[in-house]
Amino acid sequence: MSKYTIGIDFGSLSARAVLVDTADGRQLGESVMNYPHAVISERLPATGEALPPDWALQAPSDYLECLEFVIRGAIADAKIDKNDIIGIGIDFTTCTVLPILADGTPLAALDEFRTNPHAYVKLWKHHGATKYADAMTAAAKARGESFLDCCGGKVDSEWLFPKLWQVLEESPEVYNAADGFIEAGEWVTMMLTGRRVRGYVYSAIKAHYIEEEGGYPSEEYFASLNEGLRHVVRDKLDAPMVRIGELAGYVTAEAAERFGLPEGIAVAAPLPDAHSSAISLGLANDGDLCSIMGTSTCNLLVSHQRKIVDGICGVIKESVLPGYYGYEAGLCCVGDLFAWAEKNCTSPEYVREAEERGMPMIKLLVEKAAKKAPGESGIVALGWFNGNRNLLVDPTRSGMMVGMTLATRPEDIFRALIESTAFGIRNILEAIEGAGVQVGRFIAAGGIARKDPFTMQLYADILGRKIHIATTAQACALSGAITSASVAGAEKGGYNSLPEAIAHMASSTDRVYTPDPDASAIYDKLYAEYMTLHDYFGRGENDVMRRLRNISN
Amino acid sequence: MSKYTIGIDFGSLSARAVLVDTADGRQLGESVMNYPHAVISERLPATGEALPPDWALQAPSDYLECLEFVIRGAIADAKIDKNDIIGIGIDFTTCTVLPILADGTPLAALDEFRTNPHAYVKLWKHHGATKYADAMTAAAKARGESFLDCCGGKVDSEWLFPKLWQVLEESPEVYNAADGFIEAGEWVTMMLTGRRVRGYVYSAIKAHYIEEEGGYPSEEYFASLNEGLRHVVRDKLDAPMVRIGELAGYVTAEAAERFGLPEGIAVAAPLPDAHSSAISLGLANDGDLCSIMGTSTCNLLVSHQRKIVDGICGVIKESVLPGYYGYEAGLCCVGDLFAWAEKNCTSPEYVREAEERGMPMIKLLVEKAAKKAPGESGIVALGWFNGNRNLLVDPTRSGMMVGMTLATRPEDIFRALIESTAFGIRNILEAIEGAGVQVGRFIAAGGIARKDPFTMQLYADILGRKIHIATTAQACALSGAITSASVAGAEKGGYNSLPEAIAHMASSTDRVYTPDPDASAIYDKLYAEYMTLHDYFGRGENDVMRRLRNISN
Repeated sequence: MSKYTIGIDFGSLSARAVLVDTADGRQLGESVMNYPHAVISERLPATGEALPPDWALQAPSDYLECLEFVIRGAIADAKIDKNDIIGIGIDFTTCTVLPILADGTPLAALDEFRTNPHAYVKLWKHHGATKYADAMTAAAKARGESFLDCCGGKVDSEWLFPKLWQVLEESPEVYNAADGFIEAGEWVTMMLTGRRVRGYVYSAIKAHYIEEEGGYPSEEYFASLNEGLRHVVRDKLDAPMVRIGELAGYVTAEAAERFGLPEGIAVAAPLPDAHSSAISLGLANDGDLCSIMGTSTCNLLVSHQRKIVDGICGVIKESVLPGYYGYEAGLCCVGDLFAWAEKNCTSPEYVREAEERGMPMIKLLVEKAAKKAPGESGIVALGWFNGNRNLLVDPTRSGMMVGMTLATRPEDIFRALIESTAFGIRNILEAIEGAGVQVGRFIAAGGIARKDPFTMQLYADILGRKIHIATTAQACALSGAITSASVAGAEKGGYNSLPEAIAHMASSTDRVYTPDPDASAIYDKLYAEYMTLHDYFGRGENDVMRRLRNISN
Repeated sequence: MSKYTIGIDFGSLSARAVLVDTADGRQLGESVMNYPHAVISERLPATGEALPPDWALQAPSDYLECLEFVIRGAIADAKIDKNDIIGIGIDFTTCTVLPILADGTPLAALDEFRTNPHAYVKLWKHHGATKYADAMTAAAKARGESFLDCCGGKVDSEWLFPKLWQVLEESPEVYNAADGFIEAGEWVTMMLTGRRVRGYVYSAIKAHYIEEEGGYPSEEYFASLNEGLRHVVRDKLDAPMVRIGELAGYVTAEAAERFGLPEGIAVAAPLPDAHSSAISLGLANDGDLCSIMGTSTCNLLVSHQRKIVDGICGVIKESVLPGYYGYEAGLCCVGDLFAWAEKNCTSPEYVREAEERGMPMIKLLVEKAAKKAPGESGIVALGWFNGNRNLLVDPTRSGMMVGMTLATRPEDIFRALIESTAFGIRNILEAIEGAGVQVGRFIAAGGIARKDPFTMQLYADILGRKIHIATTAQACALSGAITSASVAGAEKGGYNSLPEAIAHMASSTDRVYTPDPDASAIYDKLYAEYMTLHDYFGRGENDVMRRLRNISN
């Protein structure tokens, strides 16, 4: 008899549940709901109070509303008996953090604090803590803290501790009233199980928790920032740590009632959103890599080897798969870049053509770009329109194009921008291989991978590698379903280990793009040009990009 | 009693006559006509024979048809008595050359040759002689010919001798049947006066005639190309030389009858089209400069000093004004560049806005660009979309832009392209001043100068100079009217010298743009960035532009 698990992906704007068959991971039901308050960045709904620029909050009650809706929705969509559901697992954006009482009540739910913005969830992209992050970097440098080497020499304002420090400084009453601060992924899991856990992977990728070096930064370091932070780990973060593929707990009677689940089913340790894809995309051997291509591109590679790769700070033990080091590197501007071109680099004539043919501009540009031969456009671009994440780790980088003539058309620029993203990935892969880490099977997922064969062939040609396209459109949610099948156990209809669950339930690949040697030969030349320009504009030889941003601001 | 002169500008596609009052240069009548055969580049009309690529011919009969039409048209438009016309002068594109018999009959008019493409006019932009130009360069280098230093080290295929050599090689029957080869400007003048002259200025700017070094290249040099060219100067070009502002002859009875002019009026030495503008734009003192801004921009400066300026090969004795050295340098892509942006770098939203507001896209882009502060766009561009004429003298250069972000809009790119053209002019002026030649009054003319106050203010800010805008829209034709007033003489109602004619008849300026010091200070920074990139991409440090063109071709 079939058994099922549910995976739920909590993104920046919505939650999406998938219900799958544990036998083969086949998706039977799906449901999605937008957060009622979306991202709270302008005014606090409870008071209408204006928020500072760069703030990004969410309301914890939104998550529970969505949780109920998508669980019930996925079950209804699948038309199965809910009693055959054996497990549930979630992934969540990170670091997305909120203050709670010991029983899990969010401070934002208390009358006393509902008017205080610091009582709400600070979303991953909340940038209000930048000055605290900078001060953390300065203090760590001054003290020679070794954790700095593992995060690219800089504390990111999106990470956990700058956000907590901000609360302590700007709203000590919230800080002090909180029995703990919790990742939203941990909190939603707690709402299912009644048990608070600390996700190891959240600690490792967003909170400077380095297992090889004894865990979090020292109390002395935190005290050097503010004496009130000395015991931040002990007082605000303490909970049993669970790793990817481990059990977080069982669904309580109360949660079963509220969310429409069977009582007592297994709940997997919560996952971080991007990293979790690797599970459902079937990474299973040293060097396997998945690339999730959408607005931005996230590449995840697993290896038994721990190597330092310049420009890749995300080499973290078990951040992707148990037993492996996870290498994470990406481009912060991919789909966004193509959308930019569509909106800013087109022709009045093409606007008319797209209207007449009833097609989106981006499709028209792809169609026209596909008619060009490699190199024919004569343009090389650096697509750093949103800074460069890897390998330069520099948000002040910007875009560059060279080679335009009066014969250049929008599709030439468009194609050069697509090529620039492929060059960016090639650069990352070559850096990983240069450090002695083998790159193996390349699996692509995400909207661009599934919907844009032209771009995928171009990527294969530029990377000089086969690209396997994953079938699933919901890699993150599927990963939660897989991990929960493994924690439910074989006797319930799940599996006894995560590798076993992955082997049966991970997404298949249904297409392969193979490099065309003639195209690859031309792209090798263009890539050499890209790299010369990459170093010239990226590595300080000409720091014009930074200076132009300064003049502009 | 008022007296009048006529100036006629023979452009690439049409002839335009203006009839002006000699007292003050005021334009009273105007007439324009397109050449019936326009540019003959695909098939020879007489036979339908396909022409090789890169060919550009014209039909001499077109010029006479237009000459008659525009003379009669301008007189009718002015509603004056034609007997009060005292002179006529023309300017013409150059090198635009045709084979004739001794009496001026074009070979193309003979039944024997009308089917032979080589009997027709080779227009300035005929590029069919490229291999002869390259062979001339090679031979000159091998022989150490000093004339090469005065043309940037390279014989241009658009110049006179490659075109003549092409005829000798590819149609010796035409070459041998021709009693002479004549610039179209000389030929039209001959049709008025019955007398063949050689325009000094055509020889100097397009035929390697260097007065300081004894004139044309040597017979030995020509013989080294082909023995048949040994006497090309003596046999094919011999005619009395006339300089700017000198008399070419008087209108014959036959021409008076045919073209509707008074018999016996003075005809001025023919002028080359771009260079002639300086006369009507009133250049009168050492360092005065005029900039004619249109599709491309031509800058002409006059000075008593002869200095070598790297990247400016056009420093030629009396090429612009009698008694002065003329410095000619420009940008080969200005209005063309803005038109490129309008067609390739806009937004669907702007296409709709332009339609709703009933305005051309380029006006909308100017309007939006004007709302930005200097430097705000954060982009620096090299606008070499059609190569770089000065100072790099390199057609393989192409465009570059740096600084784009996801917030970049079409007007940001548009503004950066405008700025790049101003930086290009600043670079030229700084090179001239760097060589010790003073740059004085800056007079701008042409479509962009008259119609685009935003761009002109931006130019003033970037150049850090006042820009005076000339009133006339017909600088070239007006120059012919001025030189003919000077050759007609004071007793006929003209003047006794060219400076005197210029002083009375040249165009006024009616607007001045003055640099804004705050804007200039920001642009100084951007110009420094421009120059760093100029040298990096332009001077061989990174020859990516050339390599991309090679890959593309």
